[in-house]
Parts: sequence; C-alpha cells; structure tokens
Amino acid sequence: MENPSRPITHPVEPDVRAAPVRIIEVGPRDGLQNEPGSVPTADKVAFIDALSRTGVVEIEVGSFVSQAAVPQLADTDDVFRKIERVPGVIYSALVPNERGLERARAVSAQKIAVFTAASETFTQRNIKATIRESLARFRPVVAGAKRDGMIVRGYVSTAVFCPYEGRIAPTRVTEVMKRLLELGVDEISLGDTIGNASPADVRRLLDAALPCLSRDRLSLHFHDTYGMAVANALTAWWEYGVEAFDGSAGGLGGCPYAPGASGNVATEDLVYALKASGATVPVEETKVVAAARRLVRHLSRGLTSRLSALTPG
Amino acid sequence: MENPSRPITHPVEPDVRAAPVRIIEVGPRDGLQNEPGSVPTADKVAFIDALSRTGVVEIEVGSFVSQAAVPQLADTDDVFRKIERVPGVIYSALVPNERGLERARAVSAQKIAVFTAASETFTQRNIKATIRESLARFRPVVAGAKRDGMIVRGYVSTAVFCPYEGRIAPTRVTEVMKRLLELGVDEISLGDTIGNASPADVRRLLDAALPCLSRDRLSLHFHDTYGMAVANALTAWWEYGVEAFDGSAGGLGGCPYAPGASGNVATEDLVYALKASGATVPVEETKVVAAARRLVRHLSRGLTSRLSALTPG
Repeated sequence: MENPSRPITHPVEPDVRAAPVRIIEVGPRDGLQNEPGSVPTADKVAFIDALSRTGVVEIEVGSFVSQAAVPQLADTDDVFRKIERVPGVIYSALVPNERGLERARAVSAQKIAVFTAASETFTQRNIKATIRESLARFRPVVAGAKRDGMIVRGYVSTAVFCPYEGRIAPTRVTEVMKRLLELGVDEISLGDTIGNASPADVRRLLDAALPCLSRDRLSLHFHDTYGMAVANALTAWWEYGVEAFDGSAGGLGGCPYAPGASGNVATEDLVYALKASGATVPVEETKVVAAARRLVRHLSRGLTSRLSALTPG
Repeated sequence: MENPSRPITHPVEPDVRAAPVRIIEVGPRDGLQNEPGSVPTADKVAFIDALSRTGVVEIEVGSFVSQAAVPQLADTDDVFRKIERVPGVIYSALVPNERGLERARAVSAQKIAVFTAASETFTQRNIKATIRESLARFRPVVAGAKRDGMIVRGYVSTAVFCPYEGRIAPTRVTEVMKRLLELGVDEISLGDTIGNASPADVRRLLDAALPCLSRDRLSLHFHDTYGMAVANALTAWWEYGVEAFDGSAGGLGGCPYAPGASGNVATEDLVYALKASGATVPVEETKVVAAARRLVRHLSRGLTSRLSALTPG
C-alpha cells in the first residue's frame, strides 16, 4: 500500500504536455499472441492495414520467435510481406535472437523489439533465461539491427509486479533499463504485465525511471486487468509528461495469469481519455474500434473496451 | 478540450488523504433502475443483505417515485421491510415529493435523496420540471425529512456534460448546489451522468464546488461509459482529498443514452483502485463481486467490472 502522506512531486512544466502523444499499436502482436483463437493471415493483414490508417505512429506486426512457442504468430513473415505500408507508420516485430533478426531483415522491418523483464523468476519462466542471459543474447541482435539501420525497442515487463515474485522495486527496473541502454537500445517500454499497478506505483516507477533516459525514449505499456490502465496513463502524462503509450485495439489480448480477465489497455479508451484530458493525440479512436471489430469475429470473445460497447456492431 | 498549460493546482495536504474513503452503494437503486430486466423482491433483498456485509457505509435501497415512472423499483416499500439492517450502515431511498417522503417515513428510511440536475434541458426531460420548480418541490420534502431526523442527500446530475446541452459550466453546478444547501440538504452528490468527464473536467468541477461546502459533505458519482471513472475518482481523491464516492456493485446499470454501454462505475473496481493507490477503504471488494454475481442472474447481461472478469463464476 502507498503511504498516503506522499505529496504530489511532479508538477511538470506545462509545455511538456504540449507534445503530441504517440500511440504504439501492439494488438497484432501482444494482443493476438494471448488470444486462443487462430486468425487467418489475410485477416491479420486487413487488421494491420486498417490500423495503419488510424493515426498510430507504429504497429507491432508480429513476432519472430519460434512457431512452437507462439503458434498464433507463426505467419509473421507472410503478414509483413502482404501488408500495405503507409508512409510515416513504423512496422516492427518482436525478435528474440539472431535467427529472428534474419527474418526481420528479410521482410524489411523498420524496427525490432527485444524482450526481457525486471523479475528474475518471470524471465526464467517466460523466455527460459536469466535476465543476464537474455541481455547477453540481445547484444549481437541489437548490434546487428543497428548496423542495418533498424530502430530497437527494449521491453521490460513486470516493471511493477511479477506474478511469481510480487512487487518489484523500481531500482530493479532501472538496472535492466541501464543494461538495455548500454546495449544500444533506442527506446524502452516498461510493462505492467499483470495490470495491477496503480497511479501510486506509476509515480514511484517514473521517479526512478525518468532520470535514466530522455522522456521521448520511454513508452508505458499498461494492462487493464484491474481497471487502472487509463488512470495510470493519465497520471504518467499529466504529472510526468510521458508521451508514448502502447495500446491494443479493442483491448485484444488476455492475461495468461487470469483466464477471462482483460489484457492490454484498449487503444481507443486510452486515446479517448488522453484527448478528453487535453492531450494532442493524432489517432481516430472510432477507426480503431472498427478495425478491432472486424478482426474479433475470428476470436471466441467480444471487445472489452468501453468505447466499443458504445457502438455495438 | 482542456488547455494543457493548466498546472496542477491542488497538492492537498497529506493528512487530508488519511481519512477513510466512504463508499455509497447505489446498485440497488441507480443500477437496477437502468436495467431492463425485472428482479424478484426476494433477490433484491438478498442483494442488499449481502451488500450490507461488504463494508459500504450506505446503501441506496430504492426509489419512492411513481411505479409507472420506474416499474423496476415499484417494490421499494416491500424491499425496505424485508432487508436485515446492519448497524452502522445507512439505508436510503430516492424521494421526489411529499408522497414519497411519506413512504420513506413508513419504512423508517434513515436517509432520503432528492434529485435535480445542473442542466435545464435534462431536468425538464428527466423529471418534467425546471430546475427552479424541482427545488421548490423539494423544499417541503427536505424540511419534513429534517424534522423527522432523516439525513438528506441532494443529487446534482449532468454536473459535467448533458446529453442535450453538451458541456455544463461549473458555475451552473455550484448555483444548484447552493440552492440545495440553502434548503437544508446535508450532503451533495455530483454526477457525471453520461460518463464522459475526464480528470481535467473533475479538476475544474472541484475547483468550483469545494469552496461551496466542507469536503465531508461531498460525494462524486461517476459513470464508466467512456472508461474514465476510475481515473476521475483517483484524481478527486489524490489531488483534492474527496472522501466519498458512489458506486454500483458489478457495474450494474446501463446508460439510457447509449444502449449497451457501461453505466455506473463498478464499486469493486473503484475500491480496488483506491486501495491500490494508498487510500483506506473499509470495503471488501470480493464480497461486492459475489453479491453482484448472484443478482445478475436475473438480468440479461453479465457484470462489466474488471475485477469480476478476474474470477468468472
């Protein structure tokens, strides 16, 4: 529990909040990876093509991990080849190793993402490596990607809570961030993987994290498992001037630790709340809902966003 | 749109946030009133009896409006007679006129609520009176209730947006608040009726409203239609020290202006988020979910809260 005596510490300068907020759409990767249903390649392509016209700056198209590990994304190479790339939108993919980097290079991905965590136990269970091993594995991947002019994102999941270890100290997050930055990662996405961070946790995390990198290199990745994702994003934007957030169209993606629960924050709810709070967000949330609605027919579920409930279709 | 240059203005004194947060459970009234299904009296009684053991300080049992206006709550007298009142919990009812006050008195309600709005058009469409007429009608009701030792709550709905008039200026809200306080109302609940207020709107509203009454006489009533209810409540608590919120178990209640949309903020999500942020909230959210889950069988819908999705039952 947060000590309620903690004062508000970050009255950011007003001009910080004037920067347009960037939305990184992770539905095609983080969303579909956690959905039990299988989506035909053509429908993934249609989904991404629709998302390309919503105003999001970046779309995580898929993952170049082994087909056995994530069968839902086994066709990522094919998806990359078939999408229509819109100028100004960055198309990225998750890459776990050099073999994955080869595949990313072969389809001309502009950006790759490497994936580790702040929790040792989570990393070992999730990617079968210690945090140190995961970082060592990334070294040639990041170097190779940079050599080819690709942008590199580093994910740090379980940045607040771990399903196995419980609360994670912000200093453990910043240790991993620093190692990633030393490897040459361009930006970092901090993930509240199980979605039980509160705005109080976000303040603690950002107090520690923002001194480690410039604000434009940070993205926050919230899950709405406990209903606090929008509150967390608004706190990060309003109090700290964080200007990039990951979102998943329609709230696609579940929580592997709680079947049936909500997963990623819905891009449209995030965009609506940021705009309503005064942020400049060049994303059309109704188009995001429409894109998700067409896709979700292939899954055994409905959309979970509040905005999608407003326009049942 | 909020001007992003507005600074944070309310770093409340830490001890303000130390007060326990009071949760007013409005599911049996505001929730069921907006549900198309009909719930047997015995099940309403079981719902309220379960809610009485969750830690909420107050339960709005029903409404003494005409049966024709709200058929779902026509059995409120009967419900009041059959519930088991737990000491320390306040049982209240909506009362539109002196006839309603008679009915409230007959069942020994400890508290009544009168209902008006900050929007003229909304008031005329909702209760067939101007705001001025509604207040004149309340005068003998409030006076009679106070004479009998009842506590009186005054609702001001459309406190931020009106479905007919759009944005409502905070000064229009405070005008109605002042009139209600002059009538002798003990406390005021400000409602974001259509649920599209953002934290920026909440700041504007509270900047105007809090100078009108002491903080312990104010409650905020959020709807989650656009997914910002939890963010709004956390902003009101963290930045302004607001210590009472209305909630509806399970998110019961829809939005009459958008069929299918979410209605009242779910009590359990509100409680979870406040606790996670460091607030003292003496409510057991899992018991709230359980109470709502038993009730919702009678409705043609599921629960909408994030917490209820975590424990499908």
